[in-house]
Amino acid sequence: MAEPATQPLSGDPAARVLVAGASGYTGALAAEIVWHHPRLELVAATSRSDAGRALTDLYPRYRAQIELTELDLDRLDGIDAAIVAYPHGAAAPTDAALRAAGALVVDLSADFRLRDAETYERWYGEHGAPELFGTGVYGLTELYREELREAKLVATPGCYPTASVLGLAPLAEKGLVAEVSISAMQGTSGYGRKNDDLVHFSSMTENAFPYKTEGHRHRPEIEQELAALGSPAPVAFVPHLLPLDQGEMATCFAKLAEPLDRDAVQALYRERYAGEPFVRVLDGPPNLRALRDTNECHVYVTVEEHGGAIAFGAIDNIWKGASGQGVQNLNLMLGLDETEGLK
Amino acid sequence: MAEPATQPLSGDPAARVLVAGASGYTGALAAEIVWHHPRLELVAATSRSDAGRALTDLYPRYRAQIELTELDLDRLDGIDAAIVAYPHGAAAPTDAALRAAGALVVDLSADFRLRDAETYERWYGEHGAPELFGTGVYGLTELYREELREAKLVATPGCYPTASVLGLAPLAEKGLVAEVSISAMQGTSGYGRKNDDLVHFSSMTENAFPYKTEGHRHRPEIEQELAALGSPAPVAFVPHLLPLDQGEMATCFAKLAEPLDRDAVQALYRERYAGEPFVRVLDGPPNLRALRDTNECHVYVTVEEHGGAIAFGAIDNIWKGASGQGVQNLNLMLGLDETEGLK
Amino acid sequence: MAEPATQPLSGDPAARVLVAGASGYTGALAAEIVWHHPRLELVAATSRSDAGRALTDLYPRYRAQIELTELDLDRLDGIDAAIVAYPHGAAAPTDAALRAAGALVVDLSADFRLRDAETYERWYGEHGAPELFGTGVYGLTELYREELREAKLVATPGCYPTASVLGLAPLAEKGLVAEVSISAMQGTSGYGRKNDDLVHFSSMTENAFPYKTEGHRHRPEIEQELAALGSPAPVAFVPHLLPLDQGEMATCFAKLAEPLDRDAVQALYRERYAGEPFVRVLDGPPNLRALRDTNECHVYVTVEEHGGAIAFGAIDNIWKGASGQGVQNLNLMLGLDETEGLK
Amino acid sequence: MAEPATQPLSGDPAARVLVAGASGYTGALAAEIVWHHPRLELVAATSRSDAGRALTDLYPRYRAQIELTELDLDRLDGIDAAIVAYPHGAAAPTDAALRAAGALVVDLSADFRLRDAETYERWYGEHGAPELFGTGVYGLTELYREELREAKLVATPGCYPTASVLGLAPLAEKGLVAEVSISAMQGTSGYGRKNDDLVHFSSMTENAFPYKTEGHRHRPEIEQELAALGSPAPVAFVPHLLPLDQGEMATCFAKLAEPLDRDAVQALYRERYAGEPFVRVLDGPPNLRALRDTNECHVYVTVEEHGGAIAFGAIDNIWKGASGQGVQNLNLMLGLDETEGLK
Repeated sequence: MAEPATQPLSGDPAARVLVAGASGYTGALAAEIVWHHPRLELVAATSRSDAGRALTDLYPRYRAQIELTELDLDRLDGIDAAIVAYPHGAAAPTDAALRAAGALVVDLSADFRLRDAETYERWYGEHGAPELFGTGVYGLTELYREELREAKLVATPGCYPTASVLGLAPLAEKGLVAEVSISAMQGTSGYGRKNDDLVHFSSMTENAFPYKTEGHRHRPEIEQELAALGSPAPVAFVPHLLPLDQGEMATCFAKLAEPLDRDAVQALYRERYAGEPFVRVLDGPPNLRALRDTNECHVYVTVEEHGGAIAFGAIDNIWKGASGQGVQNLNLMLGLDETEGLK
Repeated sequence: MAEPATQPLSGDPAARVLVAGASGYTGALAAEIVWHHPRLELVAATSRSDAGRALTDLYPRYRAQIELTELDLDRLDGIDAAIVAYPHGAAAPTDAALRAAGALVVDLSADFRLRDAETYERWYGEHGAPELFGTGVYGLTELYREELREAKLVATPGCYPTASVLGLAPLAEKGLVAEVSISAMQGTSGYGRKNDDLVHFSSMTENAFPYKTEGHRHRPEIEQELAALGSPAPVAFVPHLLPLDQGEMATCFAKLAEPLDRDAVQALYRERYAGEPFVRVLDGPPNLRALRDTNECHVYVTVEEHGGAIAFGAIDNIWKGASGQGVQNLNLMLGLDETEGLK
Repeated sequence: MAEPATQPLSGDPAARVLVAGASGYTGALAAEIVWHHPRLELVAATSRSDAGRALTDLYPRYRAQIELTELDLDRLDGIDAAIVAYPHGAAAPTDAALRAAGALVVDLSADFRLRDAETYERWYGEHGAPELFGTGVYGLTELYREELREAKLVATPGCYPTASVLGLAPLAEKGLVAEVSISAMQGTSGYGRKNDDLVHFSSMTENAFPYKTEGHRHRPEIEQELAALGSPAPVAFVPHLLPLDQGEMATCFAKLAEPLDRDAVQALYRERYAGEPFVRVLDGPPNLRALRDTNECHVYVTVEEHGGAIAFGAIDNIWKGASGQGVQNLNLMLGLDETEGLK
Repeated sequence: MAEPATQPLSGDPAARVLVAGASGYTGALAAEIVWHHPRLELVAATSRSDAGRALTDLYPRYRAQIELTELDLDRLDGIDAAIVAYPHGAAAPTDAALRAAGALVVDLSADFRLRDAETYERWYGEHGAPELFGTGVYGLTELYREELREAKLVATPGCYPTASVLGLAPLAEKGLVAEVSISAMQGTSGYGRKNDDLVHFSSMTENAFPYKTEGHRHRPEIEQELAALGSPAPVAFVPHLLPLDQGEMATCFAKLAEPLDRDAVQALYRERYAGEPFVRVLDGPPNLRALRDTNECHVYVTVEEHGGAIAFGAIDNIWKGASGQGVQNLNLMLGLDETEGLK
């Protein structure tokens, strides 16, 4: 069986795309999505540690026929757009070089998510390209769609902020979220490809646990976005790691600024997300299997006995929580239909 | 290899014990624990649906050599104590018959957990032995140890209340819990042996989901116990089902009645549980694998950025969350060391 | 988010298709594949037990928008083709009715796999439509492609025969297989949607076991096909159930009729399967994750120390092992490209 | 909750025991078993990489209260016995030093399993203590019990040889095994604690695969032992890795030297293993969950359609396949009941 040596493009590509950092989970998926995208041409997928290996050698379930190469920032001619899947801190200088070469940049790291420099430094340390700080558009598509159409540099949100903020947005936009406690959980792909005892199959099977209980850097990001929507609410946040690969759930206990009954809250959600191509408002709680390998976000909301709202946002953490949303935004930046290559 | 045909008792048994409803997960484990207990003699393990089958035929990982029989309430002579693992509603009449025959009763169902009749009826329907309602002792050992020594009928707490209340007790006892939101999660053994699409391996692997989001009957039980401890706090509660067998975690976001820093709260926990044989106060968040197949409860508490406490209680849901705690209490009722047969 | 109410057809459909028995794992997948197929129109998906429910209600990860209905054999007008996912025995009479109404039939059951009536009866009992016995074409596409183009009734092979025979075919066709012992393993989707203790998540996690060790009915089917290819070899066969959902591996120890070295055997395989759209000859042993949710078969062969060949055939048991291969064959029957709707 | 600071010994210890290499899976389990053993005193558990850490910090599910230290071969006074869990090659020199200091040695590595020097070198390279080569007793307890009582240096068998040889021994002892093909499978604890992509939870979940298909070094070990028993049969061997932690199955297709029916073969097995404390002859195929965390081996044998025997041997790979069997043998070497500390 011969894989096609070239991508299945339909007509001239809308952009020639580079994926930087394609040996990790999110970079590899970004390369895989771009390869199958009918309007994007994958011109390079780079990796320092795995240069020379085929992507399908690292990820046998992917089908993109491309060999990983080392990134050469001096040879960016002909790159229209780049998806950068580097660690926090390392991404910003690469983004800067790519922008300088004229490429549109979709950054999957945290480097441009936060808009307050002090908060960034507290959680991530010194910024790698201070001159660009604050110039990225926050890539939570459903909230920043119009800005994204014009964007040159996009900060793809963290996976937990994506699930949490989409789960709370209809309330937050109305100023209704007074406080929120978020219990989130995700599979081991969210931990990354780094190998240590924690994610060895023998450690993780039949296990589950909270982590970063003294402070996770996605918390200030969630607070930033709830405030931007109109609800400057304090957020308590605890993530958990689960014995599954892809999938993430944010269970959000929200104190409401004013009393609302279940029907009213559910109507608000249905109305807010009507017509959204990737957000599905469910009639009951979501489950993770239903959205594995999709760019969807499933949302459900209810009101509990004592009047608090409980909102659930569920995603595939490496799709809508990272690479899928990255491509969704790149589509917008290029004037394409935002669902292209993602269904 | 021949299993010993008789139990490995050390000397005369302290009690001859019947386990009723031994074909379900908690009843089977209760029979298994009693079989290996050095001071208890397992005289019968009953099951209507599986009478005639060996326990090890249903549960190949258990080693108790006993054939399941039908319960005959007319022949209870010589039964000193019984563990009743019946569904809610069906347990109470059997408990009544066993009490009438003079047996000590440890009930694993919900029938005697709630102390308010109206609340019971709202969540469980009509009670099966109204004359006994309110006469059981709530079997959360660490909170009711003295009463349990004198008890004749014990209501083993629900698994979620066990994890949640042990996680919050040191705060609740001081009147410090003003409000609490609990995100809990457990493995499929908590769903019971009933087979349906939800727990088919093909449905559950790579999945996780919240359930009973419109109201779970363990919530009023948690409120009852927090109030009894001194913190009549409103509780929001959401359980999740995880792709693992045994294990349960309660992640509790508690608003404190007065501000306390992390050190103070952690000291409170260490002090409260010093000397407890089955509660371990950890220095970091618990994980479920560490306590599988044990009667332990692992507890951790911290204080988050905005001053709320986050308390974690982790157990094996069929051990400390059901059968293990049942035997722990039976030990007390019989004047034995409460750890006997459980380490 | 609104699912499209109608199928994403590209132009006039090549056939209007009925899927009978769409509530089980293979029938549901057949309906899902047909729904997304650019040239097939899914006109009905039937189920006695779940009529009235949406397919996505039973299988949240599927996206086909269709409500299950009861099959009415008196109203088959306008059905060009049917995929029948009934239990063995029950399928044949339905196939007969569908054939009588002029529909092409792809049967996923065992009813037309065996060509010897006595063997059929020994393993499956009385046949449900004796007048049709022997009239089906065996749907192992790579071996019977030309016959399948003309077929009106196709017997989709068992999953184990698909993996085993594709794993052995290049040797068997040359008369080189003298004897073979097959150790096969598959996930719980192969066990079917029926719920019992065996496939409860709590039974299956951290477990694996052989089953049907005294005789599995896929063994005579494998012998039939090896003989048809030119190697009438005795087959020993043991299947195992694994703690995963989709995926199947046949590990085949073959005594060779004449000595061949590793290079020669591997060359034989590469040559035999060159150009096959769904069979991939690997350079090392296959893994199941690489082909989940695909119609591919991954094959690897080597020669061990003592001169025996070891051939591996790996598939997704509900795709190439059932519904995917069913649609592959239906494509051929309709004169379509056999990969249509399957990539 | 306070763990006991000292071991729960009953009376004077029969031996003071060192475990060398206690940070890996088998060494850690050996330390855990020795700690809970009523007659052995665990005086040290050593590890170069993790010296200074508590064993329970590395393995939260273990309860032994011991801190890992560096091994100092100059200070072995007072060590009566050692269990050495070093990699192949590195173990032999340490064994030699321990023997020189007068300690009984149970080696968990391959260094003394093979009795033919040339075969050792082919599969493992140069030997680390040639002067000791051939002086170890092969520690498959059920076959070498009497020699083990007198042994000073014991080579614990490989996990696959343990399962395979116990599965075949009753036939092999009678000279009945003419040829055998073994398909074996085990969980990820058999892969060891080393972390790489293969055993990351995200790689392994929903996966399974054969490995070392061009030759696994347990094959010559199995051939050696079958020959020693009386059946010098050629062995074909393929191991598979499964998505579970602990558990291993050998499925052995044996050509019989003379025809035997199922009853005769099954009688042979029951008779051979009658009275064995850890081998259980089942009436049907084994499953891995039934023996997790035990030192048992479950065996089943049948005869298939064409007259071949199919024998199954199942174990927990780190218990009977390594550390449990190591302690079983140490018990014998010390004149203790061989089940002590293992039930």
